[in-house]
Amino acid sequence: MSLKVVIIGGGSSYTPEIIEGFISRYESFPVSELSLVDIESGRGKLEIVGALARRMINKSGYPIKLSWTLNRKEALQNADFVTTQIRVGGLKAREKDEKIPLTHGVIGQETNGPGGIFKALRTIPVLLDISRDIHDICPGAWLINFTNPAGIVTEALLKYSLHKKVVGVCNIPINMKNSVAEMMNVEAKHVEIEFIGMNHFVFGRKVCVKGIDRTEEVLDKLIHNEVDYSPANIISLGWSKEFIQSINLLPNPYHQYYFQTEDVLAKDLKAFAENGTRAEIVKEVEKELFVKYQEEQLQEKPKELEKRGGAYYSDAACSLMNSIYNDKGDIQTVNILNQGAITGLPHDSVIEVNAVITKVGPKPITIGELPLSVRGIIQQMKAFEQLVIEAAISGEYLKAYQAMIMNPFVRNEKKAKIILDELLEAHKDYLPQFHTK
Amino acid sequence: MSLKVVIIGGGSSYTPEIIEGFISRYESFPVSELSLVDIESGRGKLEIVGALARRMINKSGYPIKLSWTLNRKEALQNADFVTTQIRVGGLKAREKDEKIPLTHGVIGQETNGPGGIFKALRTIPVLLDISRDIHDICPGAWLINFTNPAGIVTEALLKYSLHKKVVGVCNIPINMKNSVAEMMNVEAKHVEIEFIGMNHFVFGRKVCVKGIDRTEEVLDKLIHNEVDYSPANIISLGWSKEFIQSINLLPNPYHQYYFQTEDVLAKDLKAFAENGTRAEIVKEVEKELFVKYQEEQLQEKPKELEKRGGAYYSDAACSLMNSIYNDKGDIQTVNILNQGAITGLPHDSVIEVNAVITKVGPKPITIGELPLSVRGIIQQMKAFEQLVIEAAISGEYLKAYQAMIMNPFVRNEKKAKIILDELLEAHKDYLPQFHTK
Amino acid sequence: MSLKVVIIGGGSSYTPEIIEGFISRYESFPVSELSLVDIESGRGKLEIVGALARRMINKSGYPIKLSWTLNRKEALQNADFVTTQIRVGGLKAREKDEKIPLTHGVIGQETNGPGGIFKALRTIPVLLDISRDIHDICPGAWLINFTNPAGIVTEALLKYSLHKKVVGVCNIPINMKNSVAEMMNVEAKHVEIEFIGMNHFVFGRKVCVKGIDRTEEVLDKLIHNEVDYSPANIISLGWSKEFIQSINLLPNPYHQYYFQTEDVLAKDLKAFAENGTRAEIVKEVEKELFVKYQEEQLQEKPKELEKRGGAYYSDAACSLMNSIYNDKGDIQTVNILNQGAITGLPHDSVIEVNAVITKVGPKPITIGELPLSVRGIIQQMKAFEQLVIEAAISGEYLKAYQAMIMNPFVRNEKKAKIILDELLEAHKDYLPQFHTK
Amino acid sequence: MSLKVVIIGGGSSYTPEIIEGFISRYESFPVSELSLVDIESGRGKLEIVGALARRMINKSGYPIKLSWTLNRKEALQNADFVTTQIRVGGLKAREKDEKIPLTHGVIGQETNGPGGIFKALRTIPVLLDISRDIHDICPGAWLINFTNPAGIVTEALLKYSLHKKVVGVCNIPINMKNSVAEMMNVEAKHVEIEFIGMNHFVFGRKVCVKGIDRTEEVLDKLIHNEVDYSPANIISLGWSKEFIQSINLLPNPYHQYYFQTEDVLAKDLKAFAENGTRAEIVKEVEKELFVKYQEEQLQEKPKELEKRGGAYYSDAACSLMNSIYNDKGDIQTVNILNQGAITGLPHDSVIEVNAVITKVGPKPITIGELPLSVRGIIQQMKAFEQLVIEAAISGEYLKAYQAMIMNPFVRNEKKAKIILDELLEAHKDYLPQFHTK
Repeated sequence: MSLKVVIIGGGSSYTPEIIEGFISRYESFPVSELSLVDIESGRGKLEIVGALARRMINKSGYPIKLSWTLNRKEALQNADFVTTQIRVGGLKAREKDEKIPLTHGVIGQETNGPGGIFKALRTIPVLLDISRDIHDICPGAWLINFTNPAGIVTEALLKYSLHKKVVGVCNIPINMKNSVAEMMNVEAKHVEIEFIGMNHFVFGRKVCVKGIDRTEEVLDKLIHNEVDYSPANIISLGWSKEFIQSINLLPNPYHQYYFQTEDVLAKDLKAFAENGTRAEIVKEVEKELFVKYQEEQLQEKPKELEKRGGAYYSDAACSLMNSIYNDKGDIQTVNILNQGAITGLPHDSVIEVNAVITKVGPKPITIGELPLSVRGIIQQMKAFEQLVIEAAISGEYLKAYQAMIMNPFVRNEKKAKIILDELLEAHKDYLPQFHTK
Repeated sequence: MSLKVVIIGGGSSYTPEIIEGFISRYESFPVSELSLVDIESGRGKLEIVGALARRMINKSGYPIKLSWTLNRKEALQNADFVTTQIRVGGLKAREKDEKIPLTHGVIGQETNGPGGIFKALRTIPVLLDISRDIHDICPGAWLINFTNPAGIVTEALLKYSLHKKVVGVCNIPINMKNSVAEMMNVEAKHVEIEFIGMNHFVFGRKVCVKGIDRTEEVLDKLIHNEVDYSPANIISLGWSKEFIQSINLLPNPYHQYYFQTEDVLAKDLKAFAENGTRAEIVKEVEKELFVKYQEEQLQEKPKELEKRGGAYYSDAACSLMNSIYNDKGDIQTVNILNQGAITGLPHDSVIEVNAVITKVGPKPITIGELPLSVRGIIQQMKAFEQLVIEAAISGEYLKAYQAMIMNPFVRNEKKAKIILDELLEAHKDYLPQFHTK
Repeated sequence: MSLKVVIIGGGSSYTPEIIEGFISRYESFPVSELSLVDIESGRGKLEIVGALARRMINKSGYPIKLSWTLNRKEALQNADFVTTQIRVGGLKAREKDEKIPLTHGVIGQETNGPGGIFKALRTIPVLLDISRDIHDICPGAWLINFTNPAGIVTEALLKYSLHKKVVGVCNIPINMKNSVAEMMNVEAKHVEIEFIGMNHFVFGRKVCVKGIDRTEEVLDKLIHNEVDYSPANIISLGWSKEFIQSINLLPNPYHQYYFQTEDVLAKDLKAFAENGTRAEIVKEVEKELFVKYQEEQLQEKPKELEKRGGAYYSDAACSLMNSIYNDKGDIQTVNILNQGAITGLPHDSVIEVNAVITKVGPKPITIGELPLSVRGIIQQMKAFEQLVIEAAISGEYLKAYQAMIMNPFVRNEKKAKIILDELLEAHKDYLPQFHTK
Repeated sequence: MSLKVVIIGGGSSYTPEIIEGFISRYESFPVSELSLVDIESGRGKLEIVGALARRMINKSGYPIKLSWTLNRKEALQNADFVTTQIRVGGLKAREKDEKIPLTHGVIGQETNGPGGIFKALRTIPVLLDISRDIHDICPGAWLINFTNPAGIVTEALLKYSLHKKVVGVCNIPINMKNSVAEMMNVEAKHVEIEFIGMNHFVFGRKVCVKGIDRTEEVLDKLIHNEVDYSPANIISLGWSKEFIQSINLLPNPYHQYYFQTEDVLAKDLKAFAENGTRAEIVKEVEKELFVKYQEEQLQEKPKELEKRGGAYYSDAACSLMNSIYNDKGDIQTVNILNQGAITGLPHDSVIEVNAVITKVGPKPITIGELPLSVRGIIQQMKAFEQLVIEAAISGEYLKAYQAMIMNPFVRNEKKAKIILDELLEAHKDYLPQFHTK
């Protein structure tokens, strides 16, 4: 039986991680064909990554047929799973996403901040294109999206594409679970966290270790800085006793941006003055990685890859594909339609939630009411996300302005306009919906 | 480590089944102490069942400490699980539940019919008492309720008792799964049915066999009568092609009462004339069973028990306790709070739904919108159930009338009064809330 | 300033009533142009009614320009209000709606019964056509629909037509108000009833007379048969004390069909045996009316018209148009989108509710939760209505079967099929969506 | 017939305005008895205001029996309406509400800001006391609350008091209507604004002048600064074209605090450095007013009163009482239970909404979905309000912290604690629920 996986954005520096994931899971998830797809401007990287992938597969000894191509439609033929890990405009665009807001004293934040708005505006139309191709060419395939902002992009696909077999994944929940496991001195598989909310704005409500509720201990350790689950790309400032005790939930690392805004901003500005933006650092890391990838003797994912913030992303994706393929019925944290699982959020919006993973797709476990302490800000972020989607689809300036002014980092009538105008201009080439009218 | 289970209504003829369940699961669910509780009027049966249970345990060789008592409070000390399988008023009461409506040309139906109303009115106050004891004496214990009408009783407990660790179970979903498995020639563990609705009014929306959606085939077989999942106590008339194709769902056997009312009524009346009510038949079966139970050489659950409609009830209960105890995270069909899992039903009402079973309790898998074809009748039955609960709690005549008139078998201003008055009178001794004012 | 009203179905015997309504309101609602539209088969009636309307207007002395035509599109030019009072298939069709179910022991009921289903199936496509014309020709016009089943038809228009300025009206609420006024010895304008529910299934929750809550008195009088608000076309059996006290709401006359089904059925069958169906009686009344209408000296609405059940329909419609035109801000009972006014019913469904009538349309006054006593049956009827609409739009047999089996008068797998098949055949000529495939 | 009104906080400098309101409405709202109530510390002011009120009534010639007292329970005997206009802790407390946050670079804002939190914490227990007295002494009386934060306080009363006849009023909607009227050159009675949202966070969705939708014109004038509806106590910075066009709603003056935070803060800080807080200015104004009030020849509300921000508050209250008393059925903007009128806000929360005013209370006109552009921030503010209420009722430090950290002006883990601690200390005497444990 054939099992074909297509990786869109195959030239990404993350690809070796997902290749490793397939190799290590081969016995249960026997990929028979693997196709890496990229675009013209990524041809060079694709060649390098492709060659490394070949060496890795060869070393494994598994009969995985590997190919790489710029022809997406061809690659999609007979696909069972398609993953997307693209970056429209590349790291150069991310640099602008971060730098421009920062010059106006506003955090850029490439997920849910002003930078994230523009990442979404650039990405959504491209993903809709890919989704259309999948619907036409391999309608039975699952689209596993880990292109950021993963939640917003997944919601846009589920609302505006005909292809409904779409799941979004993020590494934050896995990171949080791993950190808690480390802190509690158990294996990650013994840790269950009830996640509530949305991608990059998710909270952990109940932490069970081997089925026993140990939330309080974990929160206590969090207060005393005994755990740090910030991935490499996110600031790590720690949390105050009052904050943790009052919300009585596990925040995710991104919440620092929202509740310690001034400190983060100060640190960002300082870091920016000293080292440039995170994007610039990442560029440097990437450059080094690609030098490494070209070493002929390299036959595995290099350690250096873990310096990137995206660690575990591909792990999350591989686990998900494995469970769908094998109808495992296990529980994973994914980005899928709400359908009432969280009361007070629209039924047709995407949430990040624990779900039972089956062959017919993930089914969200019901959460019920959000805790009052975070209900308001989660609802507000969800409405913000929907404004971003409406802007991305319509290409209307006023809708983009709505998203910008309603972003919690902005909330300033005048700055909203300035940042919006500068970013629209800076990303001109990647925003045809805003400029070709 | 100790693991104590208390069986309230331990003198029931079903008890040997649950004993067998504990013995067969001993390796994973090592019951260390088992206490059978009953009331004075059940003393005789309790002795017989207790003795049989002792022989069964002895034969198994497992170190399960067994006792039986009329002192509930004592038995509850240190309990981890409490099951309830009581019948307030006994089979005599059930006989009246069925006979009185029938004499007015109305189906009695001991679950959701006029008979079910009175079963609930008698049972809810008693279960609330038990629940209060549990809350006081063993607050950490799970109450596994399989006293009928299981859904209504469970909802009443979750609304009006302080003890919130309550789960209701019914054998209908298990029966349906087993029947489908038989029909599709697979083991039951390979069958997944997405159950939607409420106890005794549940539908199956999607049937997956080994992860593959095979709903259509199953519906087709249902039309051609290739499957019959009616338990022993329920009529089995088959379904018409149009009905099955139009609702596009698996009905449960009880739905025959609602959509083939006249045929069921005719059959019931005929059977009644010939053999008396189902209750009378059951009485006979029971009598024989207790004769059997007294045979000294009997050391296992007798085959004859399967003639009863409740088969698999204890299986459902044992599976559930096992999964809670071991934090299995598997999926079982239980009666728990909706919390938004089914859109359009009150969040604080109890639904019958697939749930992930963990140590901290079952978590419902989100269903979303009900199919339009059955949305209305499910909503109507849910409101009816709530009327029954309000009547049971308040003891108000007019509330009991509301429940009666809104029952789909009644819906007749005058008959509602007649049947209500006769049943109130007939059950006088077991309805203090209606009579001591 | 011009004010043009178009009456679709202008040849109806009810037209003189609406003409009278315009004349009596001329000072505040100065109709300058009035166009009666009908179809070829109604040409004869249209001529007669047109001539009578002319005599009525002449007598009034008001400068209302009157015309009648078979050319709908022409008539719609510059219309400000369009009313629809059509009967697709005529009284002959209604006769079948009633007779066919009755021959199978089921109430036909031309509003929400099996007959009503078919009235809706015939009518919805025609109204959608009219609505399309309005949208194209006079998009600013309000469509005042009093074609039955008014609620269902209005919901179908709001869901499936581009023209959103649609309001449904029914005479039941006005009748109930008038009856209460009579009973309480006050003018109707001093009576306020809070209506909750849907067309032909509406209840009155709170009755205020001159701002004072006098619900209890009214219910008491209802029990003692001191009030009878059944219009001419509806049975009048009275209500039992228990029923009224337990629901604690004012039922509408149609509720007799649902809660006194057997009595109504018996009476219907008897009446049918003696006099034929209500449709046949109405035919006779109509014949007499048209003889009367042709009397040259007749210059006003004849008293005989009140024998018809539709009395006050045109009054409701005229009041509504008057208040929209004058931005009155008064409160009338209309059929409009729920939008959350009634909790537990879909937001996009049509309810019958008190609304503030303004120039930009009626705005529903919030009801909140439905009383538990009637919540279930109202939800069930709403789902039934939606099934009817889906059947009418799709023309699918299985959807029509769904509507039939879920109708509370049917609820019988086999009868549903028989009645459905016979009615589909009987109305063949008026159900192209079901037959031209 | 008697009509008694009790004014709690009768010694307020606003009282002459409400007295004037009663005098001018005497023909339709014939107050027969008026009682001014205050507490010991307000005795001096009460005497002065009482004497002025007496002169005003004497001049009017109307037979209104006036009294003033420190005995609230006595005053409440036979009351029909009770208004509350109190300021727990007086202007001194307000000064702290504003000054303390400001010293940490945060806007104090006495309605929905950190200052507003503490105003609510001080006020809610007092109002609950008053409400309890009303429930005991004059249960039929309507409590018209215009004590700020009016929305939050009203919600707390409706949730935690047995007395349910409570309506909150604010002058913002009236001010907005008056300003629009002025701008459009019409009388205020011809202006209808559809208000959506909550007290001090309300938006205007549709503006009709004489029934014609003229929203666009009004928004256009707003952009061009042709209208300024900021009351005296609120900053007036104008709005940018992009903001107004993108939200496509009328903001209320308080929205400047949220979307022009930095400018407002700068201005506040400057003003504070130069003149002290608004509270200090108000103190000065008040001092002058009371000098004026003591002039023996003064027999009417002095012009100077309009310098206060609360103008029209009493107008709103008098209109409301008048419409309730006369069962007018007109539409006013009030703070009442949502009950589903606004989708996406809790049913049991209080919204500011147009309502039909009747003798049995105001009934909200259904709004439906909030516009996406402001949905998120309105939901967030509503959750914030609920946190404030929970803190006020429980007296728990962590709940107060939740409210503080979730306030959009704060959103800073550390500042939240500092500001909270300082305010808790500063208001110690008025927060027994936080300090007596």
